[in-house]
Amino acid sequence: MPQGRPPVIPDDGLTTRQRRNRPLVIVHTGPGKGKSTAAFGMALRAWNQGWPIGVFQFVKSAKWRTGEERALRLLGESGEGGTVAWHKMGEGWSWLRRSGTEHDHAAQAREGWEQVRRDLAAETYRFYVLDEFTYPLAWGWVALDDVLETLRSRPGYQHVVITGRNAPERLIEAADLVTEMGKVRHPMDSGQKGQKGIEW
Amino acid sequence: MPQGRPPVIPDDGLTTRQRRNRPLVIVHTGPGKGKSTAAFGMALRAWNQGWPIGVFQFVKSAKWRTGEERALRLLGESGEGGTVAWHKMGEGWSWLRRSGTEHDHAAQAREGWEQVRRDLAAETYRFYVLDEFTYPLAWGWVALDDVLETLRSRPGYQHVVITGRNAPERLIEAADLVTEMGKVRHPMDSGQKGQKGIEW
Repeated sequence: MPQGRPPVIPDDGLTTRQRRNRPLVIVHTGPGKGKSTAAFGMALRAWNQGWPIGVFQFVKSAKWRTGEERALRLLGESGEGGTVAWHKMGEGWSWLRRSGTEHDHAAQAREGWEQVRRDLAAETYRFYVLDEFTYPLAWGWVALDDVLETLRSRPGYQHVVITGRNAPERLIEAADLVTEMGKVRHPMDSGQKGQKGIEW
Repeated sequence: MPQGRPPVIPDDGLTTRQRRNRPLVIVHTGPGKGKSTAAFGMALRAWNQGWPIGVFQFVKSAKWRTGEERALRLLGESGEGGTVAWHKMGEGWSWLRRSGTEHDHAAQAREGWEQVRRDLAAETYRFYVLDEFTYPLAWGWVALDDVLETLRSRPGYQHVVITGRNAPERLIEAADLVTEMGKVRHPMDSGQKGQKGIEW
Protein backbone atom coordinates (compact mmCIF):
# COMPACT_ATOMS: atom_id res chain seq x y z
CA MET A 1 0.00 0.00 0.00
CA PRO A 2 1.52 3.35 -0.94
CA GLN A 3 1.79 5.86 1.84
CA GLY A 4 -0.45 8.33 0.06
CA ARG A 5 -1.37 11.88 0.74
CA PRO A 6 -4.24 12.69 3.05
CA PRO A 7 -7.20 14.13 1.17
CA VAL A 8 -7.75 16.84 3.80
CA ILE A 9 -5.29 18.89 5.85
CA PRO A 10 -7.06 19.41 9.17
CA ASP A 11 -7.26 22.85 10.72
CA ASP A 12 -6.34 21.67 14.22
CA GLY A 13 -3.19 23.68 14.93
CA LEU A 14 -1.03 20.53 15.12
CA THR A 15 2.19 19.96 13.22
CA THR A 16 2.40 17.07 10.79
CA ARG A 17 4.63 15.25 13.26
CA GLN A 18 2.13 15.72 16.06
CA ARG A 19 -0.68 14.48 13.87
CA ARG A 20 1.43 11.62 12.62
CA ASN A 21 2.21 10.37 16.10
CA ARG A 22 -1.31 10.65 17.38
CA PRO A 23 -2.33 7.66 19.50
CA LEU A 24 -5.11 5.63 17.93
CA VAL A 25 -8.12 3.66 19.04
CA ILE A 26 -8.55 0.88 16.51
CA VAL A 27 -11.54 -1.46 16.22
CA HIS A 28 -11.64 -4.73 14.28
CA THR A 29 -15.22 -5.93 14.11
CA GLY A 30 -17.62 -7.77 11.82
CA PRO A 31 -18.64 -11.40 11.26
CA GLY A 32 -15.58 -12.46 9.24
CA LYS A 33 -12.27 -13.90 10.27
CA GLY A 34 -9.07 -11.97 10.87
CA LYS A 35 -10.16 -9.54 13.58
CA SER A 36 -7.84 -10.83 16.30
CA THR A 37 -5.33 -12.16 13.82
CA ALA A 38 -4.82 -8.72 12.31
CA ALA A 39 -4.47 -7.25 15.80
CA PHE A 40 -1.68 -9.70 16.60
CA GLY A 41 -0.14 -8.95 13.21
CA MET A 42 -0.11 -5.27 14.21
CA ALA A 43 1.58 -6.27 17.45
CA LEU A 44 4.53 -7.46 15.35
CA ARG A 45 4.97 -3.87 14.13
CA ALA A 46 4.67 -2.51 17.66
CA TRP A 47 7.26 -5.05 18.81
CA ASN A 48 9.57 -3.94 15.99
CA GLN A 49 9.27 -0.35 17.28
CA GLY A 50 10.46 -1.50 20.69
CA TRP A 51 7.13 -0.68 22.30
CA PRO A 52 5.91 -2.47 25.43
CA ILE A 53 2.84 -4.50 24.42
CA GLY A 54 -0.03 -5.55 26.66
CA VAL A 55 -2.43 -8.26 25.47
CA PHE A 56 -5.68 -8.77 27.37
CA GLN A 57 -7.86 -11.68 26.29
CA PHE A 58 -11.39 -11.04 27.44
CA VAL A 59 -13.01 -14.32 26.48
CA LYS A 60 -11.91 -17.70 27.69
CA SER A 61 -10.56 -19.89 24.93
CA ALA A 62 -8.57 -23.02 25.40
CA LYS A 63 -6.36 -23.16 22.33
CA TRP A 64 -7.40 -20.39 19.98
CA ARG A 65 -4.44 -18.09 20.49
CA THR A 66 -1.69 -20.55 21.39
CA GLY A 67 0.31 -19.78 18.26
CA GLU A 68 0.12 -16.04 18.64
CA GLU A 69 0.87 -16.23 22.35
CA ARG A 70 3.91 -18.47 21.95
CA ALA A 71 5.27 -16.34 19.12
CA LEU A 72 4.74 -13.02 20.86
CA ARG A 73 6.14 -14.29 24.16
CA LEU A 74 9.26 -15.54 22.36
CA LEU A 75 9.62 -12.18 20.60
CA GLY A 76 9.09 -10.31 23.87
CA GLU A 77 11.81 -12.35 25.57
CA SER A 78 14.25 -12.14 22.66
CA GLY A 79 15.97 -9.01 23.91
CA GLU A 80 15.15 -7.36 20.58
CA GLY A 81 12.07 -5.24 20.02
CA GLY A 82 9.49 -4.52 22.69
CA THR A 83 8.34 -6.54 25.67
CA VAL A 84 5.10 -8.51 25.71
CA ALA A 85 2.78 -9.02 28.69
CA TRP A 86 0.01 -11.51 28.00
CA HIS A 87 -3.04 -11.66 30.27
CA LYS A 88 -5.90 -14.03 29.77
CA MET A 89 -9.30 -14.82 31.15
CA GLY A 90 -10.16 -18.35 32.12
CA GLU A 91 -6.74 -19.05 33.50
CA GLY A 92 -7.51 -16.20 35.88
CA TRP A 93 -6.22 -12.72 35.39
CA SER A 94 -2.74 -12.57 36.80
CA TRP A 95 -3.83 -9.79 39.16
CA LEU A 96 -6.90 -11.68 40.44
CA ARG A 97 -5.87 -12.85 43.90
CA ARG A 98 -9.07 -14.33 45.19
CA SER A 99 -10.20 -17.67 43.85
CA GLY A 100 -13.87 -17.69 44.83
CA THR A 101 -14.91 -15.83 41.70
CA GLU A 102 -13.23 -18.17 39.28
CA HIS A 103 -16.44 -18.90 37.41
CA ASP A 104 -17.81 -15.42 37.57
CA HIS A 105 -16.86 -14.27 34.10
CA ALA A 106 -18.58 -10.93 34.46
CA ALA A 107 -16.51 -10.13 37.55
CA GLN A 108 -13.37 -11.32 35.77
CA ALA A 109 -14.11 -9.10 32.79
CA ARG A 110 -14.59 -6.12 35.09
CA GLU A 111 -11.35 -6.92 36.93
CA GLY A 112 -9.64 -7.11 33.56
CA TRP A 113 -10.97 -3.78 32.48
CA GLU A 114 -9.95 -2.20 35.79
CA GLN A 115 -6.43 -3.43 35.16
CA VAL A 116 -6.43 -1.98 31.65
CA ARG A 117 -7.64 1.30 33.13
CA ARG A 118 -4.80 1.33 35.66
CA ASP A 119 -2.27 0.48 32.96
CA LEU A 120 -3.55 3.25 30.70
CA ALA A 121 -3.30 5.74 33.58
CA ALA A 122 0.23 4.53 34.37
CA GLU A 123 1.20 4.35 30.65
CA THR A 124 2.41 0.79 31.27
CA TYR A 125 2.25 -0.16 27.58
CA ARG A 126 2.46 1.64 24.29
CA PHE A 127 0.30 -0.87 22.36
CA TYR A 128 -2.73 -2.66 23.81
CA VAL A 129 -4.70 -5.54 22.35
CA LEU A 130 -8.08 -5.87 24.08
CA ASP A 131 -8.98 -9.13 22.42
CA GLU A 132 -12.71 -9.88 22.13
CA PHE A 133 -13.45 -6.94 24.39
CA THR A 134 -16.65 -6.18 22.46
CA TYR A 135 -18.35 -9.17 24.12
CA PRO A 136 -18.21 -8.03 27.76
CA LEU A 137 -19.28 -4.62 26.46
CA ALA A 138 -22.22 -6.12 24.56
CA TRP A 139 -23.20 -8.28 27.55
CA GLY A 140 -23.19 -5.23 29.83
CA TRP A 141 -20.41 -6.62 32.03
CA VAL A 142 -18.26 -3.55 31.49
CA ALA A 143 -19.75 -0.07 31.27
CA LEU A 144 -19.34 1.47 27.82
CA ASP A 145 -19.44 5.05 29.17
CA ASP A 146 -16.48 4.32 31.41
CA VAL A 147 -14.55 2.72 28.55
CA LEU A 148 -15.18 5.62 26.18
CA GLU A 149 -14.19 8.22 28.75
CA THR A 150 -11.09 6.28 29.78
CA LEU A 151 -9.97 5.93 26.18
CA ARG A 152 -10.73 9.58 25.41
CA SER A 153 -8.72 10.88 28.33
CA ARG A 154 -5.82 8.40 28.29
CA PRO A 155 -2.46 10.13 28.64
CA GLY A 156 0.59 9.93 26.40
CA TYR A 157 0.89 7.92 23.22
CA GLN A 158 -0.93 4.65 23.79
CA HIS A 159 -2.50 2.77 20.89
CA VAL A 160 -5.45 0.55 21.76
CA VAL A 161 -6.81 -2.17 19.46
CA ILE A 162 -10.19 -3.66 20.35
CA THR A 163 -11.48 -6.78 18.59
CA GLY A 164 -14.74 -8.71 18.45
CA ARG A 165 -18.06 -8.90 16.68
CA ASN A 166 -20.83 -6.37 17.09
CA ALA A 167 -18.77 -3.45 18.33
CA PRO A 168 -21.13 -0.92 19.94
CA GLU A 169 -21.96 1.96 17.62
CA ARG A 170 -20.62 4.54 20.07
CA LEU A 171 -17.29 2.72 20.24
CA ILE A 172 -17.10 2.77 16.44
CA GLU A 173 -17.88 6.50 16.50
CA ALA A 174 -15.12 7.09 19.04
CA ALA A 175 -12.48 5.03 17.18
CA ASP A 176 -9.89 6.50 14.83
CA LEU A 177 -9.65 3.43 12.62
CA VAL A 178 -12.34 0.82 12.15
CA THR A 179 -12.15 -2.23 9.94
CA GLU A 180 -15.15 -4.46 9.40
CA MET A 181 -14.18 -8.02 8.56
CA GLY A 182 -16.93 -9.42 6.36
CA LYS A 183 -17.39 -13.10 5.76
CA VAL A 184 -17.47 -13.95 2.08
CA ARG A 185 -16.91 -17.67 2.39
CA HIS A 186 -15.90 -19.91 5.26
CA PRO A 187 -15.03 -23.60 5.06
CA MET A 188 -17.43 -24.37 7.91
CA ASP A 189 -20.26 -23.39 5.56
CA SER A 190 -19.52 -26.52 3.57
CA GLY A 191 -18.90 -28.78 6.54
CA GLN A 192 -15.20 -28.06 7.06
CA LYS A 193 -14.26 -28.02 10.74
CA GLY A 194 -11.60 -25.85 12.31
CA GLN A 195 -8.04 -27.05 11.89
CA LYS A 196 -4.71 -26.49 13.53
CA GLY A 197 -2.50 -23.83 12.06
CA ILE A 198 -5.53 -22.06 10.63
CA GLU A 199 -7.99 -21.46 13.46
CA TRP A 200 -5.44 -21.85 16.26
CA MET B 1 -14.52 -17.88 18.88
CA PRO B 2 -16.10 -21.21 19.77
CA GLN B 3 -15.12 -24.10 17.57
CA GLY B 4 -18.70 -24.74 16.55
CA ARG B 5 -20.38 -27.47 14.64
CA PRO B 6 -20.57 -27.33 10.88
CA PRO B 7 -24.12 -26.74 9.67
CA VAL B 8 -23.77 -29.32 6.91
CA ILE B 9 -22.01 -32.69 6.84
CA PRO B 10 -20.74 -33.02 3.28
CA ASP B 11 -21.36 -36.21 1.33
CA ASP B 12 -17.82 -36.44 -0.04
CA GLY B 13 -16.67 -39.80 1.31
CA LEU B 14 -13.97 -38.20 3.47
CA THR B 15 -13.45 -38.84 7.16
CA THR B 16 -13.72 -35.95 9.59
CA ARG B 17 -9.95 -36.03 9.99
CA GLN B 18 -9.40 -35.87 6.24
CA ARG B 19 -11.81 -32.99 5.95
CA ARG B 20 -10.28 -31.29 8.95
CA ASN B 21 -6.78 -31.36 7.53
CA ARG B 22 -7.78 -30.24 4.08
CA PRO B 23 -5.36 -27.68 2.64
CA LEU B 24 -6.96 -24.29 2.14
CA VAL B 25 -6.76 -21.44 -0.30
CA ILE B 26 -7.49 -18.29 1.68
CA VAL B 27 -8.12 -14.82 0.26
CA HIS B 28 -8.02 -11.54 2.19
CA THR B 29 -9.41 -8.79 0.00
CA GLY B 30 -11.43 -5.56 0.21
CA PRO B 31 -10.62 -1.87 0.66
CA GLY B 32 -10.02 -1.96 4.41
CA LYS B 33 -6.90 -2.52 6.44
CA GLY B 34 -5.75 -5.81 7.91
CA LYS B 35 -5.51 -7.98 4.79
CA SER B 36 -1.76 -8.58 4.96
CA THR B 37 -1.63 -8.08 8.70
CA ALA B 38 -4.08 -10.92 9.28
CA ALA B 39 -2.07 -13.12 6.90
CA PHE B 40 1.08 -12.52 8.94
CA GLY B 41 -0.93 -13.14 12.11
CA MET B 42 -1.93 -16.51 10.65
CA ALA B 43 1.72 -17.17 9.94
CA LEU B 44 2.29 -17.09 13.72
CA ARG B 45 -0.04 -20.08 14.03
CA ALA B 46 1.68 -21.88 11.19
CA TRP B 47 5.03 -21.20 12.84
CA ASN B 48 3.67 -22.60 16.11
CA GLN B 49 2.74 -25.81 14.25
CA GLY B 50 6.34 -26.14 13.11
CA TRP B 51 5.41 -25.64 9.47
CA PRO B 52 7.87 -24.25 6.94
CA ILE B 53 6.55 -20.85 5.86
CA GLY B 54 7.18 -19.10 2.56
CA VAL B 55 6.38 -15.39 2.24
CA PHE B 56 6.32 -13.85 -1.24
CA GLN B 57 5.81 -10.09 -1.44
CA PHE B 58 4.53 -9.23 -4.88
CA VAL B 59 4.56 -5.45 -4.67
CA LYS B 60 7.58 -3.33 -3.94
CA SER B 61 7.35 -1.47 -0.66
CA ALA B 62 10.19 0.12 1.19
CA LYS B 63 9.18 -0.12 4.82
CA TRP B 64 5.65 -1.46 5.02
CA ARG B 65 6.43 -4.95 6.27
CA THR B 66 9.63 -4.35 8.22
CA GLY B 67 8.05 -5.23 11.55
CA GLU B 68 6.45 -8.43 10.31
CA GLU B 69 9.59 -9.44 8.45
CA ARG B 70 11.92 -8.88 11.39
CA ALA B 71 9.57 -10.71 13.77
CA LEU B 72 9.00 -13.68 11.48
CA ARG B 73 12.67 -14.00 10.61
CA LEU B 74 13.56 -14.01 14.30
CA LEU B 75 10.90 -16.64 14.97
CA GLY B 76 12.09 -18.71 12.02
CA GLU B 77 15.66 -18.65 13.29
CA SER B 78 14.73 -19.32 16.92
CA GLY B 79 15.02 -23.08 16.63
CA GLU B 80 11.43 -23.35 17.88
CA GLY B 81 8.44 -23.58 15.55
CA GLY B 82 8.70 -23.58 11.78
CA THR B 83 11.21 -21.98 9.44
CA VAL B 84 10.51 -18.78 7.53
CA ALA B 85 11.71 -17.92 4.02
CA TRP B 86 10.98 -14.33 3.03
CA HIS B 87 11.12 -13.27 -0.61
CA LYS B 88 10.42 -9.77 -1.82
CA MET B 89 10.06 -7.80 -4.97
CA GLY B 90 11.98 -4.59 -5.45
CA GLU B 91 15.06 -5.91 -3.73
CA GLY B 92 15.01 -8.50 -6.50
CA TRP B 93 13.68 -11.96 -6.03
CA SER B 94 16.42 -14.03 -4.53
CA TRP B 95 16.22 -16.41 -7.48
CA LEU B 96 16.44 -13.65 -10.10
CA ARG B 97 19.99 -13.91 -11.40
CA ARG B 98 19.99 -11.43 -14.24
CA SER B 99 20.00 -7.74 -13.46
CA GLY B 100 18.81 -6.28 -16.75
CA THR B 101 15.18 -6.68 -15.82
CA GLU B 102 15.45 -4.95 -12.49
CA HIS B 103 12.82 -2.40 -13.40
CA ASP B 104 10.54 -4.75 -15.21
CA HIS B 105 8.02 -5.39 -12.49
CA ALA B 106 5.81 -7.53 -14.69
CA ALA B 107 8.70 -9.87 -15.41
CA GLN B 108 9.61 -9.91 -11.72
CA ALA B 109 6.05 -10.80 -10.79
CA ARG B 110 6.06 -13.64 -13.32
CA GLU B 111 9.41 -14.88 -12.01
CA GLY B 112 7.96 -14.78 -8.52
CA TRP B 113 4.92 -16.76 -9.52
CA GLU B 114 7.10 -19.31 -11.34
CA GLN B 115 9.02 -19.78 -8.10
CA VAL B 116 5.81 -20.23 -6.13
CA ARG B 117 4.72 -22.80 -8.70
CA ARG B 118 7.97 -24.72 -8.34
CA ASP B 119 7.72 -24.59 -4.54
CA LEU B 120 4.14 -25.85 -4.60
CA ALA B 121 5.16 -28.74 -6.87
CA ALA B 122 8.09 -29.55 -4.58
CA GLU B 123 6.02 -29.01 -1.40
CA THR B 124 8.75 -26.69 -0.14
CA TYR B 125 6.47 -24.97 2.38
CA ARG B 126 3.37 -25.86 4.30
CA PHE B 127 2.07 -22.27 4.58
CA TYR B 128 2.39 -19.64 1.84
CA VAL B 129 1.69 -15.94 2.05
CA LEU B 130 1.37 -14.45 -1.45
CA ASP B 131 1.25 -10.87 -0.27
CA GLU B 132 -0.52 -8.40 -2.59
CA PHE B 133 -0.65 -11.06 -5.28
CA THR B 134 -4.03 -9.78 -6.47
CA TYR B 135 -2.31 -6.80 -8.11
CA PRO B 136 -0.15 -8.66 -10.67
CA LEU B 137 -3.25 -10.77 -11.35
CA ALA B 138 -5.41 -7.68 -11.87
CA TRP B 139 -2.75 -6.06 -14.04
CA GLY B 140 -2.54 -9.15 -16.22
CA TRP B 141 1.11 -9.78 -15.38
CA VAL B 142 0.39 -13.29 -14.16
CA ALA B 143 -2.18 -15.51 -15.88
CA LEU B 144 -5.16 -16.24 -13.65
CA ASP B 145 -5.93 -19.54 -15.40
CA ASP B 146 -2.46 -20.81 -14.58
CA VAL B 147 -2.77 -19.71 -10.96
CA LEU B 148 -6.17 -21.36 -10.51
CA GLU B 149 -5.05 -24.62 -12.09
CA THR B 150 -1.80 -24.66 -10.09
CA LEU B 151 -3.65 -24.08 -6.83
CA ARG B 152 -6.31 -26.66 -7.69
CA SER B 153 -3.80 -29.39 -8.46
CA ARG B 154 -1.19 -28.64 -5.80
CA PRO B 155 -0.03 -31.78 -4.00
CA GLY B 156 0.02 -32.53 -0.28
CA TYR B 157 -1.15 -30.22 2.50
CA GLN B 158 -0.13 -26.72 1.53
CA HIS B 159 -2.15 -23.74 2.72
CA VAL B 160 -1.98 -20.64 0.52
CA VAL B 161 -3.04 -17.16 1.67
CA ILE B 162 -3.43 -14.49 -1.01
CA THR B 163 -3.89 -10.85 -0.07
CA GLY B 164 -4.74 -7.63 -1.89
CA ARG B 165 -7.63 -5.50 -3.06
CA ASN B 166 -9.94 -6.45 -5.92
CA ALA B 167 -9.37 -10.18 -5.89
CA PRO B 168 -10.61 -11.59 -9.21
CA GLU B 169 -14.05 -13.13 -8.93
CA ARG B 170 -12.83 -16.52 -10.15
CA LEU B 171 -10.14 -16.57 -7.47
CA ILE B 172 -12.80 -15.85 -4.85
CA GLU B 173 -14.91 -18.67 -6.27
CA ALA B 174 -11.95 -21.04 -6.08
CA ALA B 175 -10.97 -20.12 -2.52
CA ASP B 176 -12.03 -22.05 0.56
CA LEU B 177 -12.03 -19.07 2.89
CA VAL B 178 -12.52 -15.46 1.85
CA THR B 179 -12.57 -12.45 4.13
CA GLU B 180 -13.45 -9.02 2.84
CA MET B 181 -11.87 -6.24 4.89
CA GLY B 182 -14.20 -3.25 4.67
CA LYS B 183 -13.13 0.25 5.56
CA VAL B 184 -15.41 1.82 8.10
CA ARG B 185 -13.15 4.66 9.15
CA HIS B 186 -9.52 5.44 8.49
CA PRO B 187 -7.45 8.23 10.05
CA MET B 188 -6.28 9.38 6.61
CA ASP B 189 -9.87 10.43 5.93
CA SER B 190 -9.42 13.19 8.47
CA GLY B 191 -5.90 14.15 7.46
CA GLN B 192 -3.97 11.69 9.64
CA LYS B 193 -0.89 10.35 7.88
CA GLY B 194 0.53 6.88 8.27
CA GLN B 195 2.64 6.32 11.36
CA LYS B 196 5.27 3.90 12.55
CA GLY B 197 4.09 0.91 14.51
CA ILE B 198 0.67 1.16 12.88
CA GLU B 199 1.16 1.18 9.12
CA TRP B 200 4.67 -0.29 9.18
